[in-house]
Amino acid sequence: MNIDMIRAAARRLEGHVRRTPLLNSPFLDDIAGRRVWVKPECLQHTGSFKFRGGWSAVSALDPEVRAKGVIAFSSGNHAQGVAYAAKLHGVPAVIIMPADAPRLKVANTRALGAEVVLYDRMSEDRDAIGARFSEDRDLTLIKPFDNPQVIAGQGTTGLEIAQQAAEAGIENADVIVCCGGGGLTSGIALALEVDAPTLRVRPAEPEAFDDVARSLHTGQIQRNANSGGSICDAIVTPQPGNLTFPIMQRLCGPGLAVSDDEALQAVAHAFNRLKLVAEPGGAVALAAALFRTDQINGSDVIVTISGGNVDSDMFARALATLD
Amino acid sequence: MNIDMIRAAARRLEGHVRRTPLLNSPFLDDIAGRRVWVKPECLQHTGSFKFRGGWSAVSALDPEVRAKGVIAFSSGNHAQGVAYAAKLHGVPAVIIMPADAPRLKVANTRALGAEVVLYDRMSEDRDAIGARFSEDRDLTLIKPFDNPQVIAGQGTTGLEIAQQAAEAGIENADVIVCCGGGGLTSGIALALEVDAPTLRVRPAEPEAFDDVARSLHTGQIQRNANSGGSICDAIVTPQPGNLTFPIMQRLCGPGLAVSDDEALQAVAHAFNRLKLVAEPGGAVALAAALFRTDQINGSDVIVTISGGNVDSDMFARALATLD
Repeated sequence: MNIDMIRAAARRLEGHVRRTPLLNSPFLDDIAGRRVWVKPECLQHTGSFKFRGGWSAVSALDPEVRAKGVIAFSSGNHAQGVAYAAKLHGVPAVIIMPADAPRLKVANTRALGAEVVLYDRMSEDRDAIGARFSEDRDLTLIKPFDNPQVIAGQGTTGLEIAQQAAEAGIENADVIVCCGGGGLTSGIALALEVDAPTLRVRPAEPEAFDDVARSLHTGQIQRNANSGGSICDAIVTPQPGNLTFPIMQRLCGPGLAVSDDEALQAVAHAFNRLKLVAEPGGAVALAAALFRTDQINGSDVIVTISGGNVDSDMFARALATLD
Repeated sequence: MNIDMIRAAARRLEGHVRRTPLLNSPFLDDIAGRRVWVKPECLQHTGSFKFRGGWSAVSALDPEVRAKGVIAFSSGNHAQGVAYAAKLHGVPAVIIMPADAPRLKVANTRALGAEVVLYDRMSEDRDAIGARFSEDRDLTLIKPFDNPQVIAGQGTTGLEIAQQAAEAGIENADVIVCCGGGGLTSGIALALEVDAPTLRVRPAEPEAFDDVARSLHTGQIQRNANSGGSICDAIVTPQPGNLTFPIMQRLCGPGLAVSDDEALQAVAHAFNRLKLVAEPGGAVALAAALFRTDQINGSDVIVTISGGNVDSDMFARALATLD
């Protein structure tokens, strides 16, 4: 993994992936006590940064390999990113989803052109199902973060942040990134290492799922005690990736963790002050910027909003925190 | 009013006003039966396109005149746009607001640096209060739409649409614009007349407040029967402006009208498919694109989302239409 792969991914993404803006609001600055800059990847195609990695991985395949199709395991944003990238390339996509995944996510993934295969979390082996499909049809597996071309695609977010920070006159700042397996975090870190070395990447996680922060702190990969049950589902993974962790260890930290309630408040502030729809997991970096101000240095802070795929009930719960 | 004033405004706005993107979603395309392109001015500073006109008008003033300050009448988006433009210019702003305006809007306008003067709609004469302030302090009145520099500022939206439509390969399309007094509509029309003459501007309004559509149809300025009571408050005005109507008569039409429920559904679709927060009045153009498909021609349609300053109760009401 290096910057050249990210720049190559950026060339493949050009004209297909949205260059999201860098937004701010005087009201958020007041809360944080410093200037807060927001990179809203919720505005990306399919509502999250995952489309960058999906497009990068699908477009990097040899055309003959790609034509046979791709496969991914995901109940959420990675599913939609890979499905849409495959559709726009005109190749088939199989997405393996748990049978209890939200119906809207299943419906959206299908509507984006994918063949959705549902499995029972309790009685069936996801990997075995995936292996069978891959072999039968010679599909290429696109992993959600431990895939170099996926990391390169997410890293294009960092190329944009470097350029936009320079345009905004930001010289020295923490860049807080919503972090699950670490694909976006490590990709941005690799881009900034070269293009904006005075910006420091820090992962943000939910308090009960802070495996990356603990792994960075101890220098060893740590697992989460629980595998689910967070409202920040989009960024909950068992542990950092084998490819992403060494990159994060070299370039990122220390991590920041926020409560579910703080994530919901950040969703509400993004609604109120930026007119953006963020999902709870996509708002943990903004929450850290607003509510962990004593753990952040400098006159500016940059945060990602990594996704906006939230259902209306959860969004209403977030808005209720404004009262 | 001509394109040169709009280009001059664009030069003054450069680096101060956001160039909003042009967004789309395959899900919206499916509903509309054609490609739907969305210009989200809810992402503009202060949450609406009004900041463009506010900045244009304030920046066009002679520096000695500007230093004395500006004054505006508004309970909503124009208030915030003028207040923030004045604050960033370092000059005072007085905003005359009805005493029964939503407290959040009053608080926001104050937080953006303005001196808010409240008056009683029933017992006090707004214009007399404004005139007294203007005379006492030599403030310059910034009207919400019948001001050439305000129209020029809103017209910069049209310069961007022309360029973005060309980049997206859109050759012939209706451009549906949320329309109150007609500042945004006439400004965009003047810009497109020169920069994209194959794009046709059409105003969109709430059904019970379709003064512009009726005025265009009859060739005479028509008034609305009611002065308020719409959930689309941001775009309800008594009648088209004296400056804006002749421009719209020459370049725009026919108008489109949507119901309050359709506006709320469009708010919900913008949430779900674009991850944008639109206010009901800011969503009438999107509603027309989605629900008046038989009144629209061509394989593409472009719509403005003119603002996103909506409170959480109204937003929850819009999301309930998804069920």
